[in-house]
Amino acid sequence: MKRPTIADVARRAGVSKGAVSYALNGQPGVSAATRQRILDIAAEMGFSPSSAARALSGASAEAVGLALCRPARTLGIEPFFMELISGVEAELAARSYALTLQVVTDPAAEIAVYRRWWGERRVDGVLVCDLRTDDRRVPVLEELGLPAVVIGGPAGTGRLASVWSDDAAALVETVEYLVALGHRRIARVGGLPDLLHTEIRTEAFDRACRRLGLADAVTVPSDYTGEEGARATRRLLSSAARPTAVIYDNDVMAIAGLSVAQEMGLAVPADLSIVAWDDSPLCQLVHPPLTALSRDIPAYGAHAARQLLAVIGGADPAGLQDETAHLTPRGSTAPPRSG
Amino acid sequence: MKRPTIADVARRAGVSKGAVSYALNGQPGVSAATRQRILDIAAEMGFSPSSAARALSGASAEAVGLALCRPARTLGIEPFFMELISGVEAELAARSYALTLQVVTDPAAEIAVYRRWWGERRVDGVLVCDLRTDDRRVPVLEELGLPAVVIGGPAGTGRLASVWSDDAAALVETVEYLVALGHRRIARVGGLPDLLHTEIRTEAFDRACRRLGLADAVTVPSDYTGEEGARATRRLLSSAARPTAVIYDNDVMAIAGLSVAQEMGLAVPADLSIVAWDDSPLCQLVHPPLTALSRDIPAYGAHAARQLLAVIGGADPAGLQDETAHLTPRGSTAPPRSG
Repeated sequence: MKRPTIADVARRAGVSKGAVSYALNGQPGVSAATRQRILDIAAEMGFSPSSAARALSGASAEAVGLALCRPARTLGIEPFFMELISGVEAELAARSYALTLQVVTDPAAEIAVYRRWWGERRVDGVLVCDLRTDDRRVPVLEELGLPAVVIGGPAGTGRLASVWSDDAAALVETVEYLVALGHRRIARVGGLPDLLHTEIRTEAFDRACRRLGLADAVTVPSDYTGEEGARATRRLLSSAARPTAVIYDNDVMAIAGLSVAQEMGLAVPADLSIVAWDDSPLCQLVHPPLTALSRDIPAYGAHAARQLLAVIGGADPAGLQDETAHLTPRGSTAPPRSG
Repeated sequence: MKRPTIADVARRAGVSKGAVSYALNGQPGVSAATRQRILDIAAEMGFSPSSAARALSGASAEAVGLALCRPARTLGIEPFFMELISGVEAELAARSYALTLQVVTDPAAEIAVYRRWWGERRVDGVLVCDLRTDDRRVPVLEELGLPAVVIGGPAGTGRLASVWSDDAAALVETVEYLVALGHRRIARVGGLPDLLHTEIRTEAFDRACRRLGLADAVTVPSDYTGEEGARATRRLLSSAARPTAVIYDNDVMAIAGLSVAQEMGLAVPADLSIVAWDDSPLCQLVHPPLTALSRDIPAYGAHAARQLLAVIGGADPAGLQDETAHLTPRGSTAPPRSG
């Protein structure tokens, strides 16, 4: 049996396909009486494209969307997202909400996904990651009225709800700890430079180093991949004023940095101290285990999901400060041999 | 404005709530005329719980489900699933299908998720991972008629479609390579013992070792975590007949094994050769980089998604053999020092 098409409905109702579309999507352009007649005929004929049905119903999709704008292959390697997702999942599952996941290639595609999800009522709300400076997604989401929680901030989130962590404070704690150990030449291998939290970390790093009189402090930008982390480390360790400590913006780059130190014959921690951010089980798999900035990432995801469900339920969007990452010293940090 | 409830519809139609439920869910128990009257009244009142609306519509959900029965926190650490998901995603996105992800705690919960997803037409089909011996999910999915592709096999998949890789062949290639290097004491740290592919690998390992006259070959069961991989390695390296080569059933355990060797003062590869399965970017982050069994996991996911879309589209369920993993020698394997 062939499914009826929008043209079949239009023919039966004696109206244009456009009128059927207006009626089905609740748009202006048809009278109330015509709309009702078209809806009746569509229902009678069993015409119900899922999107139209959902949009019409006004019912909850009982699903939350997460669009990730990262190269699909790099998602496999960084524990952060899967840990975040596991926490989101735990919270949603308890409320029988599904998580709809989509990997997108660029910010424009991500915005298109939001428009489609909301237009078709495929999701009741979205979680937004990787906040950027002047993020184009924020005004679009505000305009759509799509319930959203930004995982990031606290600035730049507009009128959207957010869950954020104080990256600046965690970075200052790390720099002060390394200085207390006796390090004076501290470098940082940063994450993607156009992400807002990278900018916050870089500013905090620069400020702390200036305050503590560390003239050689430098941030090398990177992209979170092991390859780039290794390359940045080789460059740093080959420089004249070789750093005695390096802070990495993720665990994967820190592990790559540890390998480069071994490859170049430098002992960790005697010749080089290493700090990883965020901590993950990977940091404890290597030898020596890595000193890291730890926080409960599944809990971070769960809090974001809980806040999104509250916003979907009608709560006012608010900014929620989550736990600040704390330093977990392990075997990869010590006073410098030369110091 | 309060949303009408099922009781409101029942009152207006002068029937029981059960009758409304039967009518909305397309179940027997009401006459065709009553069903139509109830549906008309429900539509008129704007009553449309999303699940009922979807089930009624008979329309495509344009979504594919993936329920993962693994502890949520371990998902964050193993690259396999995120790589698989990234491949599934790429294929689905090209067809405007969404991926609905749910982490479940046990097989019974997973089966309940399938029943709910299909009953509410939240998904058009599912991808099934981690096939077990006498897997209870297979007959349930057959009975539900829910389009499904098992990622695994080739045996034990019933009438369901499957995409599988020849794990036995890949294991035999690895053992023969290690023997060719001069190794006679080879051990394996296996994955979860009740997974079918673990069983296939263990059988193939035992058979190959017997054929090649390796009397000391042993498989230590594990659970894919770094902790268990480290523990198993410590036990193996402390034994009287210490192996000169260890094959690990995943990358995370292999990296943990490398750390244990370093911690115990054994040189890799001179004192101990290490092979990881599956290969992942993590294997190249450590020093020395790990020899590994490589295959294109995102492609594996993409092929599974493509086959699922075909089955959803009406194609007969088939078993598709995917690429066999091949050995990628790196710095962690060499002839044994003692050999």
